[in-house]
Amino acid sequence: MSSNRFILTLRCPDARGIIHAISGALLELEGNVFEQAQYTNESTGVFVMRTRFEANTTDVEVVRARLEAATAHFSPTITLRTENDLPRILIMVSQYDHCLVDLLYRQSHGEIAMDVPVIVSNHEACRVIAEQYDIPFMYVPVASGVEGSKAAAESRVREIIEEYRIDAVVLARYMQILSDDLCRDLEGRVINIHHSFLPGFKGARPYHQAYDRGVKLIGATAHFVTADLDEGPIIEQDVERVEHHQTAEDLAQIGRDVERVVLARAVKLFAEDRVLLDGQRTVVFS
Amino acid sequence: MSSNRFILTLRCPDARGIIHAISGALLELEGNVFEQAQYTNESTGVFVMRTRFEANTTDVEVVRARLEAATAHFSPTITLRTENDLPRILIMVSQYDHCLVDLLYRQSHGEIAMDVPVIVSNHEACRVIAEQYDIPFMYVPVASGVEGSKAAAESRVREIIEEYRIDAVVLARYMQILSDDLCRDLEGRVINIHHSFLPGFKGARPYHQAYDRGVKLIGATAHFVTADLDEGPIIEQDVERVEHHQTAEDLAQIGRDVERVVLARAVKLFAEDRVLLDGQRTVVFS
Amino acid sequence: MSSNRFILTLRCPDARGIIHAISGALLELEGNVFEQAQYTNESTGVFVMRTRFEANTTDVEVVRARLEAATAHFSPTITLRTENDLPRILIMVSQYDHCLVDLLYRQSHGEIAMDVPVIVSNHEACRVIAEQYDIPFMYVPVASGVEGSKAAAESRVREIIEEYRIDAVVLARYMQILSDDLCRDLEGRVINIHHSFLPGFKGARPYHQAYDRGVKLIGATAHFVTADLDEGPIIEQDVERVEHHQTAEDLAQIGRDVERVVLARAVKLFAEDRVLLDGQRTVVFS
Amino acid sequence: MSSNRFILTLRCPDARGIIHAISGALLELEGNVFEQAQYTNESTGVFVMRTRFEANTTDVEVVRARLEAATAHFSPTITLRTENDLPRILIMVSQYDHCLVDLLYRQSHGEIAMDVPVIVSNHEACRVIAEQYDIPFMYVPVASGVEGSKAAAESRVREIIEEYRIDAVVLARYMQILSDDLCRDLEGRVINIHHSFLPGFKGARPYHQAYDRGVKLIGATAHFVTADLDEGPIIEQDVERVEHHQTAEDLAQIGRDVERVVLARAVKLFAEDRVLLDGQRTVVFS
Repeated sequence: MSSNRFILTLRCPDARGIIHAISGALLELEGNVFEQAQYTNESTGVFVMRTRFEANTTDVEVVRARLEAATAHFSPTITLRTENDLPRILIMVSQYDHCLVDLLYRQSHGEIAMDVPVIVSNHEACRVIAEQYDIPFMYVPVASGVEGSKAAAESRVREIIEEYRIDAVVLARYMQILSDDLCRDLEGRVINIHHSFLPGFKGARPYHQAYDRGVKLIGATAHFVTADLDEGPIIEQDVERVEHHQTAEDLAQIGRDVERVVLARAVKLFAEDRVLLDGQRTVVFS
Repeated sequence: MSSNRFILTLRCPDARGIIHAISGALLELEGNVFEQAQYTNESTGVFVMRTRFEANTTDVEVVRARLEAATAHFSPTITLRTENDLPRILIMVSQYDHCLVDLLYRQSHGEIAMDVPVIVSNHEACRVIAEQYDIPFMYVPVASGVEGSKAAAESRVREIIEEYRIDAVVLARYMQILSDDLCRDLEGRVINIHHSFLPGFKGARPYHQAYDRGVKLIGATAHFVTADLDEGPIIEQDVERVEHHQTAEDLAQIGRDVERVVLARAVKLFAEDRVLLDGQRTVVFS
Repeated sequence: MSSNRFILTLRCPDARGIIHAISGALLELEGNVFEQAQYTNESTGVFVMRTRFEANTTDVEVVRARLEAATAHFSPTITLRTENDLPRILIMVSQYDHCLVDLLYRQSHGEIAMDVPVIVSNHEACRVIAEQYDIPFMYVPVASGVEGSKAAAESRVREIIEEYRIDAVVLARYMQILSDDLCRDLEGRVINIHHSFLPGFKGARPYHQAYDRGVKLIGATAHFVTADLDEGPIIEQDVERVEHHQTAEDLAQIGRDVERVVLARAVKLFAEDRVLLDGQRTVVFS
Repeated sequence: MSSNRFILTLRCPDARGIIHAISGALLELEGNVFEQAQYTNESTGVFVMRTRFEANTTDVEVVRARLEAATAHFSPTITLRTENDLPRILIMVSQYDHCLVDLLYRQSHGEIAMDVPVIVSNHEACRVIAEQYDIPFMYVPVASGVEGSKAAAESRVREIIEEYRIDAVVLARYMQILSDDLCRDLEGRVINIHHSFLPGFKGARPYHQAYDRGVKLIGATAHFVTADLDEGPIIEQDVERVEHHQTAEDLAQIGRDVERVVLARAVKLFAEDRVLLDGQRTVVFS
């Protein structure tokens, strides 16, 4: 199914004439711009841009060539795809299923424009959910304390990523820490949901940490995964009010609602190419 | 004090090439774009745009001529000013002073880039506040039930608008209803704060209406004033949670915080030319 | 499965000594109070209270007798049940399934302490969801424009309520208006989710109304159903921010997240006996 | 001006019969309870309670004696005062005046029921504000790097606390760190506003830290001051959404609105005896 609707992202050092160069190229393609957003980080001098447009061709390579020719002297990094060439997302999950259930519901109801060709888990608990959606479920166990088990699991994950031509990975409460190597190889392509308002309460049992500290709001954070645990660029966050009489378990329950919504928003933004990296920060064209 | 920084807004029927035409004109002016936002309403076919940029001249007429020449065939409506040519805002107020106090505090601390050359009130209560800020305070009473009193007051307001070269009027809890004529003559230039989440609770005593209805959130709405009471285009809204044990008076007190913040945000957005009309709706480039 | 944990609610005209009377009765039952909340509406003189406690017996009638004896001279209306005697909730739904899916997920994961013995719909669309949860699904069609069809459907609903010993009904996006008779007979026992921030945008197509009005926040309202459409006592509301570029369809999608959460909160509060009527308003002991 | 309206708080180990004992004492005083809230921390076994009531006497010692007699065997810690015996609050401030201005506005408009008999600052900047409200302004400088300067300043603050019979201190953006001794001596009586969502971004320049980390929400935290910097029990927190294009200075400006509101809420709650300590956490009866 071809389309003449495209999504372009571009990043380059800021310079005069970038927007003019692109709008010129689009004009030659008889393009209609539906959405355009741009941002210059004045402290780093980086320019980023996203445009969604309709052209007079369905041939992505024709469009790409035209845009590259027009912008070559800015040495940009460009991504370009037709709007219906959906990103292929691998969802990884452990035992908590609320984020997985939510993402699959939204994907199947057209709320998030992505493909989910395969689900990976280190537990069997979510197999039934994958089956309801007719999505292959790969059980890839990680035996704690067994030498080589984690490396073997990651090796299997890499094969699955290859086999299913995966564009990005969503850790939907996947409770294993990825190796530094895998983090680096998939940089900017792995989204995690952390169940706290980062940078508060990194690491384990954040709701218990939050209870002990007596915070009045709890939160969740969707971020890109880097080798530095819970320190990757933040995509989306939100919070919910809590009160003194609520236990750590109450906080966890309330928090699950925040996790669901925050991860869903982040994945949707990412799947629509609205999230661009800007060093340790993200630009989000919402 | 001249400046080579400009703010441009543009509205016209959507067509191919508008962005290209403007970016071309800016390139000729050796312009650096700091911020740009655009929006096409696909149902009405209206295109609107705002750009903040630096040019190689401080002469606004040179910039205007260049932009008009480049965009003439799109028949746009253009506003253009240097960034430091601040809008001149008349604040009108009755007895509740919280919005007035808040706006003057923000203006004087550089949070809202506007001039407030004069304050008008139908009561004397706020004179002391105007004096603290060395702003002329005009007492323009409206005697209820006295024929001609309101017309005379509006006539005086028109003179003040003329005399002080007022660009826009902010009704900061001004409790008189403007005449249809004045509303029409100042269309798109009068901002009101209504103390409810419109369209709920139009008209008088909205907090009492809200209490009686038992809503769980109360709100405030900043909107452009039209002849149709509380029906003008909405600029900004916000809400705050309330509980069953709070009386109508409690709601009014909580609501004042919402009113302050909502009006301040709306005035700031307006003063930075970020609010554009789109029929009965507003486009807000925040 | 018996329990010695109880939930008591009480309503009566305000008078000195009510709390003392109840705390005395609880002391005789060797009661430990886990939670207690009370509220006096000073304008109506109504006192309401909720207590969750543990007693020295599992016999609800013994506890009831003791409490009634202690409070008889206040002529209260009392509800009393053991904590594990869960309310039996009939969920009614049409074609939009997001609220149904959400309620069943929460019920099955222990987030809402209720039983859902049966689901009724005027469409077949949600049968597959009911089957996933092994809950009987009753298709009760309403033929629009066919005389008697609606009456027949309501008659069938009344039978189901009887047969399944239903305590309360949740309209989880059920798109039929209940008859005045049914509303009256089930007063205080039917919860509806309306997809707007009431009292704004009553009636049909609220997201389209909201788009046309250009509001900056959209909302949802869970309320008790009365014969007066969308005018029943409000249990819970919430809102989400929207922007000018979002279409009515975007608003509907964003709104579904608000609907889900608002209805779930309302049903959870109701199922824990935390919602008490106070005229046209609700007292919510959250 | 005497009153027969009282506010009682009580804390003791949880035990059967406390509520009954108090309601019995109130009954003997012919008390009408306007508000009552209680909470048992089941993990620590601590019971806390707040009651606002009207008695048949204006003599606080009569009421105290009755309550103490009734509850003696629970060994409670009790606070009792008439509702119009307002807490005397010392506000300390440095150069940022937004919190001071806000607190004084609210106090003078009856939104916060407290007395502010004196203001202390290590700068002269806010003297003019104190004068507008006719409140004595004490300039107590702290010379950085000068040995003994800070100790001398604290000594002066202690004198002022003594002289003005101060009940509690509010640090309204006071940029000096109190000594451990002063923190200990004033435990539970000093409220600080920290301009981040704790525990994130402790210490200096939190908005710059927040910008660098790329968070999507910024916040403010009102907390009791302890010797452990930014680690005291939290009273109130809130957040505001920010976007990638906002600089650290923009964050600081947006944050000031959050600081104002969060501190005002915390001080109001404290001034109404609604904040009780529960170890490192607070119980807030809002």
